[in-house]
Amino acid sequence: MVSKSQIKLITSLQQKKYRDKHGLFIAEGPKIIKELLNASFGLHSLFSTEDLGIVSEQFQQIEQEELQRISYLKSANTALAIFHMPKNKRTKKEGVIVALDAIRDPGNLGTIIRLCDWFGIEHLVCSWDTTDCYNPKVIQAAMGSTARVPVEYLDLAEYLGKSEMPVYGGCLNGDSVYDEQFPKDMIIVLGNEANGMSKTVLEKLSKKITIPQFGKIKETESLNVATATAILLSEIRRGN
Amino acid sequence: MVSKSQIKLITSLQQKKYRDKHGLFIAEGPKIIKELLNASFGLHSLFSTEDLGIVSEQFQQIEQEELQRISYLKSANTALAIFHMPKNKRTKKEGVIVALDAIRDPGNLGTIIRLCDWFGIEHLVCSWDTTDCYNPKVIQAAMGSTARVPVEYLDLAEYLGKSEMPVYGGCLNGDSVYDEQFPKDMIIVLGNEANGMSKTVLEKLSKKITIPQFGKIKETESLNVATATAILLSEIRRGN
Repeated sequence: MVSKSQIKLITSLQQKKYRDKHGLFIAEGPKIIKELLNASFGLHSLFSTEDLGIVSEQFQQIEQEELQRISYLKSANTALAIFHMPKNKRTKKEGVIVALDAIRDPGNLGTIIRLCDWFGIEHLVCSWDTTDCYNPKVIQAAMGSTARVPVEYLDLAEYLGKSEMPVYGGCLNGDSVYDEQFPKDMIIVLGNEANGMSKTVLEKLSKKITIPQFGKIKETESLNVATATAILLSEIRRGN
Repeated sequence: MVSKSQIKLITSLQQKKYRDKHGLFIAEGPKIIKELLNASFGLHSLFSTEDLGIVSEQFQQIEQEELQRISYLKSANTALAIFHMPKNKRTKKEGVIVALDAIRDPGNLGTIIRLCDWFGIEHLVCSWDTTDCYNPKVIQAAMGSTARVPVEYLDLAEYLGKSEMPVYGGCLNGDSVYDEQFPKDMIIVLGNEANGMSKTVLEKLSKKITIPQFGKIKETESLNVATATAILLSEIRRGN
């Protein structure tokens, strides 16, 4: 049985203000839950319709109907867990750092976290107005990569201004990414889906880079920010 | 005023069987509608809350409330149009052809159509069990690129078997894409989100290629099919 107070807590965690207040977030599905446990995320509660082989006082076996009632998904998976948010880690000062300016779509942020994981990016920094990485849609789109990619929210323009690393920005009017030799230590910035980067962030770029368009008709406005990130990270990693 | 029969038609076009029966599909938003008109898609009806500057007997100005009633979107845009599906074009036998095997997610298919447009891919072929490219979610995710990328549905294994072009496949166990010299004329196959390519399609590949994983911990299962397509098309175009 899921208690009324548990249902109330789980429902409240759909909103950022309650996630921040309680320091908790929701993950659904055995795969994602196991990856977060392996990465030492602290478990608060675990509800599942089957025995997941996870020995924990926090585990509670429930019926599918009950799970559907507390699930954020249209069709509930077999498990839902509440996790403690980890403490914010300190900013890295080496390697490749991905920086996001006002990314709003949870699916895009989740996909970018998954890409960072694939390309061995150990640090992702986000402007304060980027979607919350503990938004349930981000957690689901990241497919467990949340466990391996630390995300830090900060004043992006200030952070870039203080950094001693070169700051590359994915733009529509820069030099071709295919002609670029990227250094081992660098920051790559991606901007908002509709408006690109804010002016204060643009001013901090050392260099603008562009993914060339090959279509004959130049009406395609831009690439989706997640697919642009995929191409830029691939280009950075293939060379260094 | 939108008539009852118009509402009935629009509602029915959410389903593939009615799209096929009537040879019609829905597009929403002035930008997408104008791009389809520019690409000579035949207009059946156009409903808009504002004058779009489109001179047509099919145009009908309506109120926002009416538009919301016929819209497929949570928040209706300012315009909705019904278009005639174009006749299937003949298969190209040169250049780079993208082939999809059982892609199921409309967002992924729409993003791939947008990528084809960006990278100048003039022909996209899909297995019969790939999501319908006139699905409204595909039309919205493609953001107007539907106007410039012809899509053909066919028996994929048979098509690949008959083709004289080399057939590359995006797989998890192939040679690194970064070591590959791609020819000018080729087919690149991408498989289903969960299960990859079907056995009959796998047998037709001339070569398997892989996007190398750079993360230290090899638990990331795979890249999303749309981000993988982005990287593969970028690699193909940068070289040829």
